[in-house]
Amino acid sequence: MDTFMQAAIEQARLGLQEGGIPIGSVIVHKQRIIGAGHNRRVQKGSAILHGEMDAFENAGRQPANVYRESVLYTTLSPCSMCSGAILLYGIPKIIIGENQSFMGEEALLRSRGVQVEVLQDEICIELMKSFMAARPELWNEDIGV
Amino acid sequence: MDTFMQAAIEQARLGLQEGGIPIGSVIVHKQRIIGAGHNRRVQKGSAILHGEMDAFENAGRQPANVYRESVLYTTLSPCSMCSGAILLYGIPKIIIGENQSFMGEEALLRSRGVQVEVLQDEICIELMKSFMAARPELWNEDIGV
Repeated sequence: MDTFMQAAIEQARLGLQEGGIPIGSVIVHKQRIIGAGHNRRVQKGSAILHGEMDAFENAGRQPANVYRESVLYTTLSPCSMCSGAILLYGIPKIIIGENQSFMGEEALLRSRGVQVEVLQDEICIELMKSFMAARPELWNEDIGV
Repeated sequence: MDTFMQAAIEQARLGLQEGGIPIGSVIVHKQRIIGAGHNRRVQKGSAILHGEMDAFENAGRQPANVYRESVLYTTLSPCSMCSGAILLYGIPKIIIGENQSFMGEEALLRSRGVQVEVLQDEICIELMKSFMAARPELWNEDIGV
């Protein structure tokens, strides 16, 4: 498997071990991870720390050109908030683990010129399927349902 | 002036006093502020704590129905990230201080059924105009430019 998607999956698993929602993300600039993160709704009582947002936060304040040369990996199709962050910073390409459990704003991203690849990775699918069956109320809270 | 926009402006001024970017926001549920925030890029070295995001974070984990009965006030037109958070949580109405300094994703929000009001408030305009003239590099960083 792609090393960077593997790193995003490790983030998702780390979140699960912490009692959280298993979604992970890494931001990669010139083949180097500059920010890795996972959903911290439970861990930090946060309404905004989705996996991708946590990766942006952990990457810290970056110059605009760094974002514009980066690829974002995420285990799950990005919701409107995370997609909005991708658009804000002009991330040109994202690699998505899967979109069978949840379809995010892929159409909006593509319409704004973002290159979107979906792997339909079995590990990512199983992580979310198990979690959604075990903790449906937490999953719903995470997507505002 | 509207009490809640006044509270958002106070948040923006607080941010400015802290050496930050003067954008503030409050989330109001049934005539009560449940979350107030301001941009903390400088204060926390944060790439995600725009004013609206900080208000969401400070409101904490809320049930879906609370967001769906809330109004978000922000001193400046919301960028794609903050607009994405508004869509994620199904905020039905937002009141914007001004969009002359920066035009955010108002068209997207309206296309998804969000009620958008723009006040073109002179205090909000002056706060941003002065800041953008004084610290253009910081403002550009905040919008990924």
